[in-house]
Amino acid sequence: MPYGYNGKIARVDLSRRQIKMEQPDKIFYRKYMGGRNFAGFFLLRELGPGTDPLGPENKLIFTTSVLTGVPFPGNSRFTVAAKSPLTNAYGESQAGGFWAAEFKFSGYDAVIVEGKADEPVYLWIHHDTIEIKDANHCWGRTTGDTQQLIREELGDSKIRIACIGPAGEKLVKFACIVNDLKHVNGRNGMGAVMGSKNLKAIAVRGHKRVKVKNPNALRNLSKLFNQSYLKNPENALLQNLGTPGYVKGLNAAGLLPTYNFRQGTHEKAENLSGEKMSTSILVGKEGCYACPVKCKKIVRTEGKYWVDPIYGAPEYETIAALGSNCGIFDIEVVAKGNELCNKFGMDTISTGGVIAFTMECFEKGILTQSETGGIELKFGNEEAMLALIEIIAFRKNIGNLLAEGSMRAAKKLGRGAERFAMHVKGQEIPLHEPRGKFGVGLMYAVSPIGADHLQAEHDPVFSEEGFALDQVKPLGILEPLNTLDLGPKKIRLLRYLHLVASLHDVLDLCIFVGFPTKVYTLNHYVELVRSITGWETSLWELMKVGERAINLIRCFNVREGFTKEDDTLPKRFFEELKGGPFEGQKIPKEDFERARGTFYSMMGWDTKTGIPQRAKLEELDIGWVSDILEKTPV
Amino acid sequence: MPYGYNGKIARVDLSRRQIKMEQPDKIFYRKYMGGRNFAGFFLLRELGPGTDPLGPENKLIFTTSVLTGVPFPGNSRFTVAAKSPLTNAYGESQAGGFWAAEFKFSGYDAVIVEGKADEPVYLWIHHDTIEIKDANHCWGRTTGDTQQLIREELGDSKIRIACIGPAGEKLVKFACIVNDLKHVNGRNGMGAVMGSKNLKAIAVRGHKRVKVKNPNALRNLSKLFNQSYLKNPENALLQNLGTPGYVKGLNAAGLLPTYNFRQGTHEKAENLSGEKMSTSILVGKEGCYACPVKCKKIVRTEGKYWVDPIYGAPEYETIAALGSNCGIFDIEVVAKGNELCNKFGMDTISTGGVIAFTMECFEKGILTQSETGGIELKFGNEEAMLALIEIIAFRKNIGNLLAEGSMRAAKKLGRGAERFAMHVKGQEIPLHEPRGKFGVGLMYAVSPIGADHLQAEHDPVFSEEGFALDQVKPLGILEPLNTLDLGPKKIRLLRYLHLVASLHDVLDLCIFVGFPTKVYTLNHYVELVRSITGWETSLWELMKVGERAINLIRCFNVREGFTKEDDTLPKRFFEELKGGPFEGQKIPKEDFERARGTFYSMMGWDTKTGIPQRAKLEELDIGWVSDILEKTPV
Repeated sequence: MPYGYNGKIARVDLSRRQIKMEQPDKIFYRKYMGGRNFAGFFLLRELGPGTDPLGPENKLIFTTSVLTGVPFPGNSRFTVAAKSPLTNAYGESQAGGFWAAEFKFSGYDAVIVEGKADEPVYLWIHHDTIEIKDANHCWGRTTGDTQQLIREELGDSKIRIACIGPAGEKLVKFACIVNDLKHVNGRNGMGAVMGSKNLKAIAVRGHKRVKVKNPNALRNLSKLFNQSYLKNPENALLQNLGTPGYVKGLNAAGLLPTYNFRQGTHEKAENLSGEKMSTSILVGKEGCYACPVKCKKIVRTEGKYWVDPIYGAPEYETIAALGSNCGIFDIEVVAKGNELCNKFGMDTISTGGVIAFTMECFEKGILTQSETGGIELKFGNEEAMLALIEIIAFRKNIGNLLAEGSMRAAKKLGRGAERFAMHVKGQEIPLHEPRGKFGVGLMYAVSPIGADHLQAEHDPVFSEEGFALDQVKPLGILEPLNTLDLGPKKIRLLRYLHLVASLHDVLDLCIFVGFPTKVYTLNHYVELVRSITGWETSLWELMKVGERAINLIRCFNVREGFTKEDDTLPKRFFEELKGGPFEGQKIPKEDFERARGTFYSMMGWDTKTGIPQRAKLEELDIGWVSDILEKTPV
Repeated sequence: MPYGYNGKIARVDLSRRQIKMEQPDKIFYRKYMGGRNFAGFFLLRELGPGTDPLGPENKLIFTTSVLTGVPFPGNSRFTVAAKSPLTNAYGESQAGGFWAAEFKFSGYDAVIVEGKADEPVYLWIHHDTIEIKDANHCWGRTTGDTQQLIREELGDSKIRIACIGPAGEKLVKFACIVNDLKHVNGRNGMGAVMGSKNLKAIAVRGHKRVKVKNPNALRNLSKLFNQSYLKNPENALLQNLGTPGYVKGLNAAGLLPTYNFRQGTHEKAENLSGEKMSTSILVGKEGCYACPVKCKKIVRTEGKYWVDPIYGAPEYETIAALGSNCGIFDIEVVAKGNELCNKFGMDTISTGGVIAFTMECFEKGILTQSETGGIELKFGNEEAMLALIEIIAFRKNIGNLLAEGSMRAAKKLGRGAERFAMHVKGQEIPLHEPRGKFGVGLMYAVSPIGADHLQAEHDPVFSEEGFALDQVKPLGILEPLNTLDLGPKKIRLLRYLHLVASLHDVLDLCIFVGFPTKVYTLNHYVELVRSITGWETSLWELMKVGERAINLIRCFNVREGFTKEDDTLPKRFFEELKGGPFEGQKIPKEDFERARGTFYSMMGWDTKTGIPQRAKLEELDIGWVSDILEKTPV
């Protein structure tokens, strides 16, 4: 067995109920390393253009990296990828928890699910074996019930289960996959793809430990982490309050999306804060595999609503999505919404985005009470928000339309509704107001998976004293830059951070461990890969690995017909923000367009079309991608 | 004082006899790091396009790097740069020895020489002081006499002197600068620029030691070097025989340029071998500052010729240039030729190239005995070769024409002579036959300083078992490649090696220490820079530093009117090689041209023109270069 990986990738054909195994060579593992690179590799080669995301031809890939399974802070994640039903582009989503490590221990590095089962099934992957098992008894059930049923059936409480809820079964376009009931592959509708295959869950268990080349070096890295982590007050905040700890600061900065991105601040925002959560409904902390940070919280309340603690606590994104952006400023309500989303299996960001969109349509008279089935869909209506989650998950009444996501719903509604659908490429926008962080805006636009806040690590302020400048110095970023800058130095930074972000999704690493939290510089990632795999790697190689993945998936999208016109932002961000420190701020459209061109060009993409040039792909040692593009009929 | 550098750059205006000092900020030092980056920075900003290389407006820069002066194997070199009178492009040449370290100890990182002295002078740089001193007594003297005179005058035998000989004074276009009589800034005619400024020498002495951030880490790197170096038999060869040790292997491989690049092998080549040298005329070994390798040899003979040991021994390049390529197969004769070149101050590669060219012209009847002043310039005529060195150095008779270099001489001669002038951009071709190593051919062509064999580290065979694959794995080069390959994977390798080669010339590091000799991987360079400067650098940053330099100097050339047409090879290389294992081999011209386009594109240069694109320059954080280019009248 090699260091860092098993050397085995499984293919499960649900239509034929066949299981096959592949053993890629060592060059494959080093060149692609895992996560979105593995996914991009297989999807680009194996899916024809125009594949129906919810048809049996789509493939659903669960993959880890050459690091997964090694006990190390932040090393808990895995990637699920398929053509996305939400964006019709390459789709992927990462999640933490314990599933990834357990899956790796079972003997595989990835599993590619093909076809469609004739009736509900789940996969039981354990000790180098994969079984396709009947899941009729789980179908229609919540994630919580499903997990319990499968654990009981298999008689092992340590089994880790990634499953869909009713939303995935109903093919809600932003249905997610949930593991341990609170870790979520949220974005891009991977849960719907899983549902379309009649695949309810993947249960994993194994005892195979991953071989580490240099355990001492790894131990030293862990030690360094443990010694340094709490030195940064932001990390202490994360550990104490989790991501909800960011609410207060973002609200003060005027960057907390409110009322469907019309405002960036609200006087009641403190009611949604991590501080508020910790003094009211917080009952515990939980972490992911091998991670001492424990940024995940557990909440419980029997007040206004009963919130089941098994579904975890809302993250920052969820709080702003279901809370402030819907005009709701009660943490208990948000916690309930979070519980429902995890139970039914829906992405909270998209769910919140769709609800905020619906509320604005209602406010503007585009939707009337008769159309909403009697619900008064005003901003701030807590019960309406919670009701919508349920009707969307089960596609009841207007929920059936909203389950298509805000882009499609808006198109169908007409009457000017498109103006209020806050999405890029069909995916609802995360809760980071770009009018105060222009880099986030640009990266929302060019992100190959639709709007995503992790494409350039939040466009942090790289100031001498501020956030993370030391962390990017290994890249040769030596000067502080402004968040409202879209000039070439900034685009260079964003290009570099885009590669770094991609690298995270290749290695399936959590960003909350290293780079942006001032614990490690990027060089520690090099040491991490080196100590686990024994490869004499470098930051050059790792950045290129990240870049390779971006180009793979961008080319997938090119083949699907995506163009520069898709790399844009909702009109609202080119208009003035209301209230707060960024009052009146808008993203200047000309600057944005120029910046996009510069970004393309720096990426080695055609400035006019955004298509990766052959030489760039060849420089990334994926010339075969150009061959595929050239063979595709236009 | 910062770690690794003094923080001071001197300007000496010889016309006004003024000395100024500049103290660039720390970002300048980290961004450019030294050597060709410093040189490119100043030359591009300060020389107008069309500057006469031998006029007072040209600037001659002697520069070190942020590593120079720290005792470390291979860390002995410095860069001399100016607009080249040989190529009319950006010009530079590196040399080893002891001058670089001593200069750094004097308190400066670089000295920029401007203007022209009204009579011969030399610079005396010591202990943070620079004096302009009279050199009338040295003018017309050999390098040996000059060194002795200055040391006597200053009363310190430890002074290190870089000086020109009569060839530099006579503005021979390929005159060099010699330090310690045997270390040479050979290429690009830097000695002529020095001569044009009436600057005979720069004498240096200092006691300021360079501060090292992490001496322990540095010590460990040295230790590793000392323990590993001789494990590679190729290194033992280098240590025992020096570069002449390569003659035998290259001849056997059919890649030893012979008879002006018409053949690649010769039955008498063993007479030129390192083995032959070591059993005949070798009397000692010498090294460079802090380097245990001691690849430099000393020869002495009182046989056919008296060869003065103070001028060192011929390197491989010199042996093939003055030997096999002129049809001469006697190591003593070559040693004499080497002595003369070092004494008079002429680059042996260009000198040999010009002589071989002349011999072929003579053979073809383009030059007659009456034109050569009675010398019978046949291949193999030893005395003719030695006589030519002298008449070129002093510009006597036909030497005056040949002193212009083979390109200009051929143009003047007409009569088809251009066919035999083996040069790129006016600079004579080094002694590596490209028809057996296509990568070397491509890099000769695209090299910004004219034909140069160090632009991609010799296009080594990167085979599993062979040369250096482990060394480039940190770049993600994972598969062996063939030397006759010009496909995209090969161009990718060449692009990467081009950056590595450039990095050597930025850091002023010797290639015989690290990367190609299997002692260090590229990651050890990162550790080296880190341990000396304390910067948390990475291979990403270092590769970009190397790339920055290439782009700076390419843009210098663009401004001078260089185009794709200048990035080509002499016709001969597109024709069949005679004899040996590569009998009949030629570089396929179409493949070559396609490869050049791919290379441009991978470098971020316009595929049609080879001009660096603005986005590439901005990505390298030198957007100011684009501004300069755009301001230049076409």
